[in-house]
Amino acid sequence: MKTKILFSILLVSLISFGCKKENSETTPVVVEETITESDPLPSWNEGVTKTNIVNYVSDVTNTESENFIPIGDRIATFDNDGNLWAEQPAYFQLFFAINRVKAMAVNHPEWKDQQPFKAVLENDMEALIKQGEHGLVQLIMTTHAGNTTDEFDAIVKDWIATAKHPTKNVGYDKMVYQPMLELLSYLRANDFKTYIVSGGGVDFMRAFVSPVYGIPSEQIIGSRIKTEFDYNNGNPVIKRLPELDYNDDNEGKPLNIQKIIGKKPVFSSGNSDGDLQMMQYAASNKHKSFMLYVHHTDSVREWAYDRDSHIGKLDKGLDEANEKGWTVIDMKKDWKVIYPFELK
Amino acid sequence: MKTKILFSILLVSLISFGCKKENSETTPVVVEETITESDPLPSWNEGVTKTNIVNYVSDVTNTESENFIPIGDRIATFDNDGNLWAEQPAYFQLFFAINRVKAMAVNHPEWKDQQPFKAVLENDMEALIKQGEHGLVQLIMTTHAGNTTDEFDAIVKDWIATAKHPTKNVGYDKMVYQPMLELLSYLRANDFKTYIVSGGGVDFMRAFVSPVYGIPSEQIIGSRIKTEFDYNNGNPVIKRLPELDYNDDNEGKPLNIQKIIGKKPVFSSGNSDGDLQMMQYAASNKHKSFMLYVHHTDSVREWAYDRDSHIGKLDKGLDEANEKGWTVIDMKKDWKVIYPFELK
Repeated sequence: MKTKILFSILLVSLISFGCKKENSETTPVVVEETITESDPLPSWNEGVTKTNIVNYVSDVTNTESENFIPIGDRIATFDNDGNLWAEQPAYFQLFFAINRVKAMAVNHPEWKDQQPFKAVLENDMEALIKQGEHGLVQLIMTTHAGNTTDEFDAIVKDWIATAKHPTKNVGYDKMVYQPMLELLSYLRANDFKTYIVSGGGVDFMRAFVSPVYGIPSEQIIGSRIKTEFDYNNGNPVIKRLPELDYNDDNEGKPLNIQKIIGKKPVFSSGNSDGDLQMMQYAASNKHKSFMLYVHHTDSVREWAYDRDSHIGKLDKGLDEANEKGWTVIDMKKDWKVIYPFELK
Repeated sequence: MKTKILFSILLVSLISFGCKKENSETTPVVVEETITESDPLPSWNEGVTKTNIVNYVSDVTNTESENFIPIGDRIATFDNDGNLWAEQPAYFQLFFAINRVKAMAVNHPEWKDQQPFKAVLENDMEALIKQGEHGLVQLIMTTHAGNTTDEFDAIVKDWIATAKHPTKNVGYDKMVYQPMLELLSYLRANDFKTYIVSGGGVDFMRAFVSPVYGIPSEQIIGSRIKTEFDYNNGNPVIKRLPELDYNDDNEGKPLNIQKIIGKKPVFSSGNSDGDLQMMQYAASNKHKSFMLYVHHTDSVREWAYDRDSHIGKLDKGLDEANEKGWTVIDMKKDWKVIYPFELK
């Protein structure tokens, strides 16, 4: 059941990539950055969103305030895809799987006649989609399992070193949101412990995102496949098996936060309905909490999508944010730049 | 299968408690503590064990050494039962379950005629053991599930505030090992991140051990039962279900370390064969690593047991430690005091 949900999401992501035309433009908007010592969020335009964030952090870190939060309880959880980096035209991890099939094909001559690999090798997205969920599961498991955790880590590191985003033509690790990087730093400077809590694969993220976000592997939570311990004649390895172990999405997010962190977040940030239960969980904190939704409103500099999107659908979450007064980032209005490479 | 293993362990623990005579004595040995500024481990006698620990820490934290370990990779994992606190005459969590049945019995008059509760209420350990694994699973699930994580946390906090160890007659949280507390502090002072990786229940430990060990809940890893998210009309709670989710023992330890921390430990400490795979995993670290076994050799101040014990059996682990030159603590010889309450 859980497997089904995860791969349905990947499938619609793929359908979207294969069949829909994107309305983004690729020309980066270069904006002069004005960093002042007193401004911890220089890439954020002045306005309600920025003010809400700064007021919250100032309030809960003020020992004189009735809303003061002890340092140990300052847990901040961030979704990744579409929240800290882009997720269009498909999840970056899906591009990894596609690239990986192509790299592995030299050792698998049989794949040129065997679906779903044939479709990937021929760049035939429509044929790939026809393989349905079964084909996609086969694609993901073939590219993510059957090796050790150390081997997989090295494979992802190799991939990220050269892979380019299909429309922006920069490395995927460059497509992070500059304002969110500043927010992460700002929170850490105020003794918040920043976590990633993503539907994406935890070992995929751990291979390269730590230096990008300043978040160590032990603060990265995500979906994962099953593993087994192999003593391997005294050189133990952990083997990755072709079966889903945990789907870190929807209610899986607060449940995993409880399992792994054991504390409720006081600050929670996401961009889709898949983050809603994490938001609700943070909102129930006995401490004053802050719920922050990224709303993709910028069809020129990034992508504009919400209620009807196959990727990062934001519908119920947007209603609940409005109803409960959570802060919603209007990407077009609130952010001076999107990506770090747009900074002068 | 995993459930079976966990509860078999609990069962032999119970058998041991019910049927075997302990050879420990309860008179605490008060030893004058000599804390000098230069000695980070004042409750450890001079000798090979202490020297090995100090030499290792000095070496890997020395930027001039070829064995230097960057701070982010200084992960230290500690078993809990029998390693940071005592585990005799039965695991402390089993005493919690027994005490809990007695506390819950006021609302369950039917239990006085119903096994396994009848046996617990009548302190009839032999009858309880006759209920076998099924009875023990029923006992654990009745006392650990059927509530929310917040409710369970409050229940354990209430219990620890008054419960006393059956032979030492002090609170269970007082039966921690003073030399190990010093070791935890010493490692943290040298920028190691200290984790508990225990076969015990993670939420049971989290309810009260953080201030005892100086380890926050997000660095406590353990066994756990399944949970579910309940929106609860806008006041979300996480419900605890009567089914095992993860057995954090044997190969479950390195697997959980990989899932949750995503880094291999460089320092690993345990006291039983259930810790052996965690030791082997640490020993395979590319960095210089340190494996430390606690050997229970002190029948007067604590308990003496190893290869034939039903609780904390140390057999294969002792052989492998000797064979590979891992450090083994001889509790009787290496430790000046056992518990903090023995300090003057």
